[in-house]
Amino acid sequence: MKTDKRLEMLVERARAGRRLKVAVAWPADKSTLNAVAQAVDNGIIDAIMIGCADKVKETMQKAIEDGRVTLLDVESPAEAAQKAVEVVRQGDAQLLMKGLVSTDVVLRAVLNKETGLLDPGNVLTHISIGDIPTYNKLLCFGDVAVMPSPNLTQREAQLRYMLDMCRSLGIEEPRVSLVHCSEHVDARHFPCTVDYVELVKRAKEGEFGPCIVDGPLDVKTSCCLEAAVTKGIDSPLQGQADALIFPEIESGNSFYKTVTLFAGATIACVVLGARVPLVVSSRGDDEMTKYYSIAAACCAAKKGA
Amino acid sequence: MKTDKRLEMLVERARAGRRLKVAVAWPADKSTLNAVAQAVDNGIIDAIMIGCADKVKETMQKAIEDGRVTLLDVESPAEAAQKAVEVVRQGDAQLLMKGLVSTDVVLRAVLNKETGLLDPGNVLTHISIGDIPTYNKLLCFGDVAVMPSPNLTQREAQLRYMLDMCRSLGIEEPRVSLVHCSEHVDARHFPCTVDYVELVKRAKEGEFGPCIVDGPLDVKTSCCLEAAVTKGIDSPLQGQADALIFPEIESGNSFYKTVTLFAGATIACVVLGARVPLVVSSRGDDEMTKYYSIAAACCAAKKGA
Repeated sequence: MKTDKRLEMLVERARAGRRLKVAVAWPADKSTLNAVAQAVDNGIIDAIMIGCADKVKETMQKAIEDGRVTLLDVESPAEAAQKAVEVVRQGDAQLLMKGLVSTDVVLRAVLNKETGLLDPGNVLTHISIGDIPTYNKLLCFGDVAVMPSPNLTQREAQLRYMLDMCRSLGIEEPRVSLVHCSEHVDARHFPCTVDYVELVKRAKEGEFGPCIVDGPLDVKTSCCLEAAVTKGIDSPLQGQADALIFPEIESGNSFYKTVTLFAGATIACVVLGARVPLVVSSRGDDEMTKYYSIAAACCAAKKGA
Repeated sequence: MKTDKRLEMLVERARAGRRLKVAVAWPADKSTLNAVAQAVDNGIIDAIMIGCADKVKETMQKAIEDGRVTLLDVESPAEAAQKAVEVVRQGDAQLLMKGLVSTDVVLRAVLNKETGLLDPGNVLTHISIGDIPTYNKLLCFGDVAVMPSPNLTQREAQLRYMLDMCRSLGIEEPRVSLVHCSEHVDARHFPCTVDYVELVKRAKEGEFGPCIVDGPLDVKTSCCLEAAVTKGIDSPLQGQADALIFPEIESGNSFYKTVTLFAGATIACVVLGARVPLVVSSRGDDEMTKYYSIAAACCAAKKGA
């Protein structure tokens, strides 16, 4: 498997302290099997593999013998998703990962009010950690996949999860940009900008702990001091954002697809907000992305994010 | 001035046929002055420079003597914008470019119902032409700056302008992707996807001439055949989009800022929909972007776009 120099930092952090266990629903595809096998071999996690016993045995015989991987038998992907949620609720796993199950099916199991993993008042949000070769450090961003169009309450939750994620990567005072297409507050056309003003105010009042939150800023003024200066913008982020929060899913997804396709970025991603971090990679993600996503989820879980 | 290999194609096409004239409002900044000087020297355009006579004389003495650049005296940036619009209405210029005037001021002059340049029923849309080194050809996209959240009628206008732009670059059957964060039609959460279905239908019926229009597709499945195949998507675009139309300004702007900041893209851009193409570069744009934007606007004007 190819490795990514900067994302290896996730692995190091994930390995520190006690070893966690991931419940993997329906690991029928190669990239899930290989990613989990690698994570187990490298001492990041132990795993409960739910379904697809034959394939699991082929890939990780030794880890099964060592007791680091256990098997649970189920009949279908949907049953596997249910079972994975149940295993987490019982406290037997501290992470949940999906294999070849559609994300909808997994989220339905997670969101179930009686048997699921989302506590009242919480929201789910998707966070990516990107190694973009043309940026000088890792960049977290979201939401590219789960939360379509957040209101103020949801944005605040998103900001808190983003800060948790950054801190779990060792960033003590995360710099978070609230992204918009311009730097102007415009209540009439862009209500998100009004939410941003409120969140910046709360951050300044210390409500979210040590952090620097600014916005509205665009992607460029968030991540490039020169661009901010040229535009006459004096932001405390100083073009050095650790994280970008997008106004809605379309712009987040556009960013994600663009950095991976055109800027050679490698990504790890995780869904936060449920009782445990979820690894909900998509069909298109390769082994490396899934591997680092497991590591990212471990970091988040250890931080209590 | 640095040149861009692929965008030089715009210059070649702009130079073909009769020479057009650009009305430049308040050319007080170096990058505007240099870009226009270069465009005049290279035989792309003639120019009417409105305001800032001293600076213009310093930069393009020879072109003034040759009669290729003329001067008009005004007192302020706002007056320059007004005057530029007037010059175009009188038929003395076939392009309008802004110098150091705020875009709002220029657009106000253009949008004025009695004295402006927007005919009833038309809409303004911003189109960029990007040379992204990691893509195999030029890629047009929009709207990143002018149209916040189009309805179906505005989307159709946008599609027509985009097709005009592509054809003015010599693409006979443009491949246009209607971008969304996924490939599913979802009327409840994403009304744009319903508009997309309608536009794809009209395109298939031949309403827009020779073209291939598809969507909803994300940025990756639009521009990478492998990504489409992995996701099980069989799109007639075959991962070879010539143009991307974004659902709203946030995602368009996110794409624009991301390819320029992280993927080394060089951009030309133009606003279409008024009686003549507008060059409305932003303060942050360099000489090269402004130069190629003049060339792009010439191409569009010659095509009657």
